[in-house]
Amino acid sequence: MSNIKTNSVGIVEPQTLHFDEPLSLESGRLIEQYDIVYETYGRLNSAADNAVLICHALSADHHAAGYHHEGDSKPGWWDICIGPGKAIDTNRFFVVSPCNLGHCSGSTGPRSIDPKTSQAYGQDFPIVTVVDWVNYQKRLADKLGISQWAAVAGGSLGGMQALQWAIQFPDMIRHAIVIASAPKLSAQNIAFNAVARQAIMSDADFHGGRYYDHNTVPANGLKVARMLGHITYLSDDAMGDKFGRELKNDQLKYDYGVEFQVESYLRYQGESFANRFDANTYLLMTKALDYFDPAEKEGGDLSAVFEKVQAKFFLASFTTDWRFSPARSKEIVSALTEAGRDVSYLEFESNYGHDAFLVHNDDYLDAFGAYMRNIEVSP
Amino acid sequence: MSNIKTNSVGIVEPQTLHFDEPLSLESGRLIEQYDIVYETYGRLNSAADNAVLICHALSADHHAAGYHHEGDSKPGWWDICIGPGKAIDTNRFFVVSPCNLGHCSGSTGPRSIDPKTSQAYGQDFPIVTVVDWVNYQKRLADKLGISQWAAVAGGSLGGMQALQWAIQFPDMIRHAIVIASAPKLSAQNIAFNAVARQAIMSDADFHGGRYYDHNTVPANGLKVARMLGHITYLSDDAMGDKFGRELKNDQLKYDYGVEFQVESYLRYQGESFANRFDANTYLLMTKALDYFDPAEKEGGDLSAVFEKVQAKFFLASFTTDWRFSPARSKEIVSALTEAGRDVSYLEFESNYGHDAFLVHNDDYLDAFGAYMRNIEVSP
Repeated sequence: MSNIKTNSVGIVEPQTLHFDEPLSLESGRLIEQYDIVYETYGRLNSAADNAVLICHALSADHHAAGYHHEGDSKPGWWDICIGPGKAIDTNRFFVVSPCNLGHCSGSTGPRSIDPKTSQAYGQDFPIVTVVDWVNYQKRLADKLGISQWAAVAGGSLGGMQALQWAIQFPDMIRHAIVIASAPKLSAQNIAFNAVARQAIMSDADFHGGRYYDHNTVPANGLKVARMLGHITYLSDDAMGDKFGRELKNDQLKYDYGVEFQVESYLRYQGESFANRFDANTYLLMTKALDYFDPAEKEGGDLSAVFEKVQAKFFLASFTTDWRFSPARSKEIVSALTEAGRDVSYLEFESNYGHDAFLVHNDDYLDAFGAYMRNIEVSP
Repeated sequence: MSNIKTNSVGIVEPQTLHFDEPLSLESGRLIEQYDIVYETYGRLNSAADNAVLICHALSADHHAAGYHHEGDSKPGWWDICIGPGKAIDTNRFFVVSPCNLGHCSGSTGPRSIDPKTSQAYGQDFPIVTVVDWVNYQKRLADKLGISQWAAVAGGSLGGMQALQWAIQFPDMIRHAIVIASAPKLSAQNIAFNAVARQAIMSDADFHGGRYYDHNTVPANGLKVARMLGHITYLSDDAMGDKFGRELKNDQLKYDYGVEFQVESYLRYQGESFANRFDANTYLLMTKALDYFDPAEKEGGDLSAVFEKVQAKFFLASFTTDWRFSPARSKEIVSALTEAGRDVSYLEFESNYGHDAFLVHNDDYLDAFGAYMRNIEVSP
């Protein structure tokens, strides 16, 4: 029996493209050659003007919609809004969803083999930034024959990429969809990332990032990092509603084991993540977040950065998101408005905190869908 | 040259009392014998009705005011409000400040020697709760000839002890001073504690809490726990004002070292704490926080718990405290009001987050002092 719903893109298969042309990075370093793994949904029209780029956040990847096989229990990470008749309607749009450089789901990253040494890169893999990812995604666009995206869309770190696209290649993007994002991290955001990295890098199994050679992984550190991340993705209210002070067992044990359901949940989340995700990629993603600051080149003036932007913008935030609160989206909206750009902004009621951009919510998806329907594409 | 200010209690010396009578704990376990280390400031009057008990929070101890020697660079942790002419005026009050059971600053705790095994207790030290501390502090009151506290005062976890005193020994306390506290932890509060414990307990140097025997300490785990704690003590705004995105060096290095000042600050705080604090005590204190829930015995009805309370209450909270936000203090205020108790409550503007209760602020200290001046004591 199939789990696949009727409004799904169905079964999808990741594709891989190999690139031999070196990519210059913001750090001054170079990545000589690399693979891009990506998925596509829908069809590119003959005018090639209906392509939508999906940018993923920290722990997601190219698998944004559909299923990998019959009986696959979970669809892609943004299946709520990508599919026939959905907000990003695959009957109209050709959706391209790449896995970012540095990731651990197929595209070249720290656990890939460095052709120079025939060993895994580990921490020799260069730091990559949002600017680098946009250059990397442009290479993919060129290869796929897309000279202009109808839209570039993402949430959180993905929203930063959409924003950066509008700045970096102003004539290659008609609409930027920036959800639950921020124009740069706050000191508190950086601090949480610093704690996560500290947990990973001080794990005795980290071995300076060369744990692959020791046949181990820094699972404890990655578990702590993910547990911490989870707290920042959920709202205080949502955690309260879901777990409150509910006990794991019938009564308190007064020991250092798990007493409360919320502890049990976090440990489970941390463990399952540590089993599937590469610690070096986690470090790299948190650094990309830290470095993102497009206004820095204009002395902190975000509206100056938007002077040359041509894209129209759709921004959305969620009331209980305290990682990237509505106030952070409003910083972007204000700067766009000041620069005279077209921007639609909506703040949605949600109890799901930062994770709200991944959760079905009629108001959010209706507004997102309405915006997308107004994007003109050739028949 | 002395650093000691004129309105200081001056040089103080901790005292130790040994107790042989076993103390029954909430867990059902027993602690056979123990030391209480404490400091006192001011003089007990002949009616013995001017004693104020100070309850410390997670990482503080008995050293609440004054200096330990000439040239001591820092006074006790609550020196802003304890001293001659200060909010808790030592010209009027006899202040008693004990180090809690389970701590690592002198009172019996996990790194003390268990007389049964002649080894450090480690994780064999029983879990202690706020209820246990109140019983333990009562033993000290008995020994010092104090049959009723003029006031019991504390912030954060210390405020929980003041609250518990009013519930547990209603005729032994005239005023409860509960600052920046909460009637119980939220799921998010518990979650942060769970992450801190996970970091410590998964450190390869933890050895199931028997690290003393291995001549090591789980410094990396404790460092991560403290870094995380620090983020929750400070407000997002305060971190932003203090550090923003200021760089540690002239320019970005694009590596896994420290790039931003806030990372540098957190690492420093984490390291200095890991060098002085005992990891088992940290675990124990977070557990005491988790377990605190006086309303639980009344099916969650806090006002029912307050029916038998006789003390009058002074509560204070701070606008940017997101660890124990003003809303948490208001839960206590509402329940006290419902139970017909006398309560003064003030919310103070402050940028310092949870740490605000430790920081000089005229409005806060003036109101605190005004309340304390109204407490009647014999001449």
